[in-house]
Amino acid sequence: MMARTCLIRNAEVVTATDHYRADIYIKDGAIQAIGVDLSMAADRVIDATGLLALPGGIDAHTHFDMPFGGTTSSDDFLTGTRAAAFGGTTTIIDFAIQTRGHTAQEAFDTWLGKAEGKAVIDYGFHMILSEVTPHTLQEMQSMVDQGITSFKLFTAYPGVFMVDDGGIFQALQRAGEIGGLIAMHAENGSVIDVLVQQALARGQTAPKYHALTRPPEAEGEATHRVITLAKLAEAPLYIVHLSAFQALDEVTAARDRGQPVFAETCPQYLFLSYDNYEEPGFDGAKYVMSPPLRPKEHQEHLWRGLKTNDLQVVSTDHCPFCMKDQKILGQNNFAKIPNGAPGVETRMSLIYEGATKEGRLSLNRFVEITATAPAKLFGLFPKKGTIAVGSDADIVLFDPQGSTHWSAQTHHMRVDYNPYEGRTTPGAVRTVLSRGEVIIENEAFVGREGRGEFLKRATFKHP
Amino acid sequence: MMARTCLIRNAEVVTATDHYRADIYIKDGAIQAIGVDLSMAADRVIDATGLLALPGGIDAHTHFDMPFGGTTSSDDFLTGTRAAAFGGTTTIIDFAIQTRGHTAQEAFDTWLGKAEGKAVIDYGFHMILSEVTPHTLQEMQSMVDQGITSFKLFTAYPGVFMVDDGGIFQALQRAGEIGGLIAMHAENGSVIDVLVQQALARGQTAPKYHALTRPPEAEGEATHRVITLAKLAEAPLYIVHLSAFQALDEVTAARDRGQPVFAETCPQYLFLSYDNYEEPGFDGAKYVMSPPLRPKEHQEHLWRGLKTNDLQVVSTDHCPFCMKDQKILGQNNFAKIPNGAPGVETRMSLIYEGATKEGRLSLNRFVEITATAPAKLFGLFPKKGTIAVGSDADIVLFDPQGSTHWSAQTHHMRVDYNPYEGRTTPGAVRTVLSRGEVIIENEAFVGREGRGEFLKRATFKHP
Amino acid sequence: MMARTCLIRNAEVVTATDHYRADIYIKDGAIQAIGVDLSMAADRVIDATGLLALPGGIDAHTHFDMPFGGTTSSDDFLTGTRAAAFGGTTTIIDFAIQTRGHTAQEAFDTWLGKAEGKAVIDYGFHMILSEVTPHTLQEMQSMVDQGITSFKLFTAYPGVFMVDDGGIFQALQRAGEIGGLIAMHAENGSVIDVLVQQALARGQTAPKYHALTRPPEAEGEATHRVITLAKLAEAPLYIVHLSAFQALDEVTAARDRGQPVFAETCPQYLFLSYDNYEEPGFDGAKYVMSPPLRPKEHQEHLWRGLKTNDLQVVSTDHCPFCMKDQKILGQNNFAKIPNGAPGVETRMSLIYEGATKEGRLSLNRFVEITATAPAKLFGLFPKKGTIAVGSDADIVLFDPQGSTHWSAQTHHMRVDYNPYEGRTTPGAVRTVLSRGEVIIENEAFVGREGRGEFLKRATFKHP
Amino acid sequence: MMARTCLIRNAEVVTATDHYRADIYIKDGAIQAIGVDLSMAADRVIDATGLLALPGGIDAHTHFDMPFGGTTSSDDFLTGTRAAAFGGTTTIIDFAIQTRGHTAQEAFDTWLGKAEGKAVIDYGFHMILSEVTPHTLQEMQSMVDQGITSFKLFTAYPGVFMVDDGGIFQALQRAGEIGGLIAMHAENGSVIDVLVQQALARGQTAPKYHALTRPPEAEGEATHRVITLAKLAEAPLYIVHLSAFQALDEVTAARDRGQPVFAETCPQYLFLSYDNYEEPGFDGAKYVMSPPLRPKEHQEHLWRGLKTNDLQVVSTDHCPFCMKDQKILGQNNFAKIPNGAPGVETRMSLIYEGATKEGRLSLNRFVEITATAPAKLFGLFPKKGTIAVGSDADIVLFDPQGSTHWSAQTHHMRVDYNPYEGRTTPGAVRTVLSRGEVIIENEAFVGREGRGEFLKRATFKHP
Repeated sequence: MMARTCLIRNAEVVTATDHYRADIYIKDGAIQAIGVDLSMAADRVIDATGLLALPGGIDAHTHFDMPFGGTTSSDDFLTGTRAAAFGGTTTIIDFAIQTRGHTAQEAFDTWLGKAEGKAVIDYGFHMILSEVTPHTLQEMQSMVDQGITSFKLFTAYPGVFMVDDGGIFQALQRAGEIGGLIAMHAENGSVIDVLVQQALARGQTAPKYHALTRPPEAEGEATHRVITLAKLAEAPLYIVHLSAFQALDEVTAARDRGQPVFAETCPQYLFLSYDNYEEPGFDGAKYVMSPPLRPKEHQEHLWRGLKTNDLQVVSTDHCPFCMKDQKILGQNNFAKIPNGAPGVETRMSLIYEGATKEGRLSLNRFVEITATAPAKLFGLFPKKGTIAVGSDADIVLFDPQGSTHWSAQTHHMRVDYNPYEGRTTPGAVRTVLSRGEVIIENEAFVGREGRGEFLKRATFKHP
Repeated sequence: MMARTCLIRNAEVVTATDHYRADIYIKDGAIQAIGVDLSMAADRVIDATGLLALPGGIDAHTHFDMPFGGTTSSDDFLTGTRAAAFGGTTTIIDFAIQTRGHTAQEAFDTWLGKAEGKAVIDYGFHMILSEVTPHTLQEMQSMVDQGITSFKLFTAYPGVFMVDDGGIFQALQRAGEIGGLIAMHAENGSVIDVLVQQALARGQTAPKYHALTRPPEAEGEATHRVITLAKLAEAPLYIVHLSAFQALDEVTAARDRGQPVFAETCPQYLFLSYDNYEEPGFDGAKYVMSPPLRPKEHQEHLWRGLKTNDLQVVSTDHCPFCMKDQKILGQNNFAKIPNGAPGVETRMSLIYEGATKEGRLSLNRFVEITATAPAKLFGLFPKKGTIAVGSDADIVLFDPQGSTHWSAQTHHMRVDYNPYEGRTTPGAVRTVLSRGEVIIENEAFVGREGRGEFLKRATFKHP
Repeated sequence: MMARTCLIRNAEVVTATDHYRADIYIKDGAIQAIGVDLSMAADRVIDATGLLALPGGIDAHTHFDMPFGGTTSSDDFLTGTRAAAFGGTTTIIDFAIQTRGHTAQEAFDTWLGKAEGKAVIDYGFHMILSEVTPHTLQEMQSMVDQGITSFKLFTAYPGVFMVDDGGIFQALQRAGEIGGLIAMHAENGSVIDVLVQQALARGQTAPKYHALTRPPEAEGEATHRVITLAKLAEAPLYIVHLSAFQALDEVTAARDRGQPVFAETCPQYLFLSYDNYEEPGFDGAKYVMSPPLRPKEHQEHLWRGLKTNDLQVVSTDHCPFCMKDQKILGQNNFAKIPNGAPGVETRMSLIYEGATKEGRLSLNRFVEITATAPAKLFGLFPKKGTIAVGSDADIVLFDPQGSTHWSAQTHHMRVDYNPYEGRTTPGAVRTVLSRGEVIIENEAFVGREGRGEFLKRATFKHP
Repeated sequence: MMARTCLIRNAEVVTATDHYRADIYIKDGAIQAIGVDLSMAADRVIDATGLLALPGGIDAHTHFDMPFGGTTSSDDFLTGTRAAAFGGTTTIIDFAIQTRGHTAQEAFDTWLGKAEGKAVIDYGFHMILSEVTPHTLQEMQSMVDQGITSFKLFTAYPGVFMVDDGGIFQALQRAGEIGGLIAMHAENGSVIDVLVQQALARGQTAPKYHALTRPPEAEGEATHRVITLAKLAEAPLYIVHLSAFQALDEVTAARDRGQPVFAETCPQYLFLSYDNYEEPGFDGAKYVMSPPLRPKEHQEHLWRGLKTNDLQVVSTDHCPFCMKDQKILGQNNFAKIPNGAPGVETRMSLIYEGATKEGRLSLNRFVEITATAPAKLFGLFPKKGTIAVGSDADIVLFDPQGSTHWSAQTHHMRVDYNPYEGRTTPGAVRTVLSRGEVIIENEAFVGREGRGEFLKRATFKHP
């Protein structure tokens, strides 16, 4: 049973702005008081001496239990959210998928069904729209009313998810009117499809051709395009999984003009690169995702974007497929390799490493991009994303003196490889609280399956 | 006598990140606890229902008791800091002036003497260097050791303050090595002097020619130049009183490349414009300051910069001269009008208006640019600039339902005009605490002369 | 009968580079010698004292006898080329239109049929591709072999001419391989269609809504997009009828990177503006063309582009429809107004005015953008586009002291209005020679119907 | 004795625009006629079958017989202009130097004295102003009247040539009024001097430190600065010996805004690089010039600039010093190495190689940047810079099938090394005519010492 009250003693509290030593008093799942030598009695007391108290991470981009080309991403809402918690993430936003000929409501219901009884941390949904019709446009309001306030569209995957520019434009207009936020997968799918067919026709079937047929310019172009559409529609815009400096340049230019454009990148684009596709045998398939990993020189640009706030969020695009049985489907044709890779568990540690060990970001900024900013952009703030009086007690006690070793042998994601196999990151998650309840301690999950709650998110407000 | 403990009840606390309702418990001048229904007993209890609790404002750019062309700015450290407090500002950073042939230490001692026994809020100093010599470069370390960690140089005022590019470059190198921050007045003084002489030779003596002989391009050029020097010197850089979009474009471009360049603007550049110079008679003299007010179209750019963090700080460049006796010196020659205008009292209200009434910035961002960011950039954080456990209890209780009327008849600055005469801003400062002590309440100053303390500032750290 | 030899005496010869006084000796249609006091005997001698000898204009963008929405552009190859000659243009490049389900060869044959026996000056064709299929891609080579070395594609007019990005990309690749040049109509037709439907649904049917539903951003976006596709395809690119500074900025940026991107603008975008749509009654329909006329501030940008060679060509997009019977079709619905306006006759005079009277361009540059550059870009040089030994004697004797009054009453285009009605331009076309034959003199056409020859153009070569 | 008439038979004439086969008939030093099979009798007939007839090269930047730090550049006006002629250059513009305390008139007289009786090709002068005073400003008009219509100023060399920004600004204003053109050496000399002193203090005395203490950013900065000053002064501007992409970016940006800014680069920046400073022993001294050679990646940018006309001219900055006796002065201190290198003879061949063998530029563009553009920018057109009726018969017959081997053993410049030692360039200069007189044939100089004439140049006109 959950302790009604909990007192965290002597933590080094870090928010997007502050950094101080204090006790945190929690009651009924929320933070009640923060102070020096608090005198409240509590059902449970946790000594956090030497530990950082961080707002629980928010991963705004996961795909649990997602059907893809005849198979399904290998983590479901149980294994996925549990792995997230192990990694210091206490909220995820997954994607419900409206497929052509079906309603968004059906998609919402389906995805709620996937999560309920399984998720161990709180969760929300974005709605993927695979088409924009008068009915879809109408359903957008209904979704917003039910707490799904962001909608993802694609300029990629013609015939499946790609919506034409007129459709994207209408969705943007609609979102602008009703307080929704359009999240775009921005790659020119029409050109990519030509490149893929040309490569296959030349017998270029190895995993690396996945990357070589999705050039960064195709991402930059689509990013420029949707930014222009958003400007014409007078709507805010969010670019998902930005990977290429060409795309970052477009976002930067838009923000320099004052346009409300936002973007996330993912750890894989900050820590891995095209070189990984050159790993021996079929190992390159581990990294087959869209957009693909980019040449190393893109990384500096992305870190720069995170530093000066042209990138606001680091999410994961967690979408794991096992090498065995799943990735192998594309052994003779890179285009048949299920797209995606695991990352929900490794995100916080990797970004912490980049921030502190490599000195790229302040601790405050680390908190901002992993928790506060996604909470604000996606209508979860101040319930989530900060350590403040009144907020949910989603808190990670993180040991800066510890270290974490990553391996498929020991990670908690249900997938048979880890893209960061063998890597040791500085710091270690010691204790994780979700709404005041300890769910991770002593390297074990001590929460309850299905305890996670659906989060009705608020409409978009400029942060 | 100061209450050792104080409890602010039921405030709406706003920081650069958070916004929540809570009590604030203060002890020995610092914030001890923040929470719901705190139970501590306190020497004094303040009911803040309906009020915002804001971090006391930090004005990083004032000139109190400053000699200028045979006269002296009309506010001293008593009248100036008191006016600041009335306006919701609890910390100022003034400028000590090293003049040619004298040491920085002399300047520091002189300015400390000006402030001690007078200042009613805490204060720090930047050091203006009017020359860069081996001795000056040596003294920079000594200044840093004494808590003066920023140094202002000029590309303007040849023969008085202007240092040549080689000197600026050396100062930047030195600052980079010792944790100092160079603050630049960036206008091309050499060209401006030619334009001034040419205008006077044509008989153009009215106040508006002050503006017309200091074109925005001259600011943009100098800004570009010092950014390049900072890049070569591998040093951070801070641009003071940025007024023109040409200069903002340069700062933006530098930040887009990841260079650690920061800048402040001032309310006068956001709310006033070149049109003010066209006011009848000699009234244009009220606005004679450097850089001058710019054409209206610059304002949008500056607000954009504040929104997307290409401008980090709003300070005032408060440097008042009375129309009578002082401004009048330039009646027949704009070049003899003492440069400067009052603003230390109006800053918070004006920016609050821009943020909320005009919807340009969130409340969090308002707090950030008026308090948190200057505290972080100038080594005062977390003692100043936030409301957090352990921080100084510099708190402004601000009534969002109130309003403030501005007039030279009623303002507290010692100057015979107000650039915003007749303007009413939304919101009203109700109570101001400095280190836990109430110094403003019921529209009266209730503090003690000379209670302000010198702030030893820490070295520069990238925020 | 044509004089085998002709001697032009004492002309002021102007080319894209040179400007000198000389005689020009012509034999068998070509320039044989240029010199001072040439001594050759000639069948005909023309005294050109006081006149400029200009290379005959080349209009690289006309639509004679073009079917459009149930009607046909009102000039055919006789009236159109004759009007061109009156205006000082001696070569046009028209567009053959491959329609869906038909071959390019059919289109070529059809358009050759339209021109033969009618055209009075020499002409070539671009080929409009309304679809990109394996067969189209194959036919591109055949077209190049027959002297049609440029291909126009559209990002606009979904369902009619619009080709998706993958198709455009393939055409670019193909053109790059075989020495073809892709000419793009760059507007985002998908978004424009939505805007048009939304406007009509709101009852906004007047001509001006044609412009308001085709925002300049939609042109800038498409221009950026096709430039990116051309970069990926490693192919040169030519943007037709560029009208908006947003599009020019994209072309400029591409050229600043060294990408072989070229563009034309048209006189209407330099001399007319959105204001024309506000003319009383249905008169705005005169200016309904795509892209539409832009707000006046765009003009300065276009002149700048012409001056520093970010725009290389001025063509007309001549595509006239009479107000009576034709434009009137859209009286109740701007979307039904036939798109296009007359211009083939007025081009040279207008640009001469901009160059000289307004001082925007040198005379050399005037010649370059109206004749030399299109000749070089479209494989007609040195046969056309210059006055040099060996080149066709396509020469305009232009009187810089004269003037030309424009009116539908007097112009030679077969259309019942003139967009420049009442305007007087400096200079007057006195005599026009096409391949050494005088076809215009004393304000009369003295040539022969059908004397114009089809021009087999060479493949693309970077100028 | 000079032939009064000359007929060049069957040449392939190339101008900035045209390319055709013709005879050229010359009379009294000027081109009288160009045509096929000209029938004029001539004193001399030259068969040019298989040869290109190019306009004689114009080198707009030479320093013959120039005093520098106690020594003198090793070519005088005889050896220098003769070497120029061997290399296909028939006009040079050298620099007269007004030194502090002396008048421009004295400088002009002195330099005229240096050239008269020696120069074998025609020559003009720019005037270097080492100070801007009321007297200098007055003399500018007198210089223009005498045909010296361009003035060079420096942002480098403090204490010698550097003029402060106010002075540069005044000179720009003055030039703008009187039709002069300011040519700027743009490097931030003040910062460079600090870097030089710091390097020497660290014992860094080798030639390469010349480059390392003159970073490209210092050129970019100064270029940006003088462009801004020119904008404020409403005057055209010419940047000399542009070497760094940072500077090119500034010129490009200015031109993209329509500002009349022009620039030259030199062959050394296109063909040599920083790597040359790493040559063994003291050989790096051969390349000590200002600005210094840049890292290789700059070369691509410069070629791009030449291609799309952001760079208009290739000149040489020819300023040779022998390794023996001269360069050696800086053996123990790079700052004492005389600045400069030879190039007047190699320019045309190197640029021809870049244009044709490397395919970077068309033949027309080769002619334009080596002859036509400098003629137009510096008031020599149409007398010089083209092959057209009425122009001076300064013609180079160039054999595209030949080749030229470069070595200090065989070159004609009076200097004991060649920066391109051992290099073979395609093409060979066969015959050179200056004002119709053959001065180079059969690899020998056949002209007369002192036959070159001073060129009174016209005022600046936008090309």
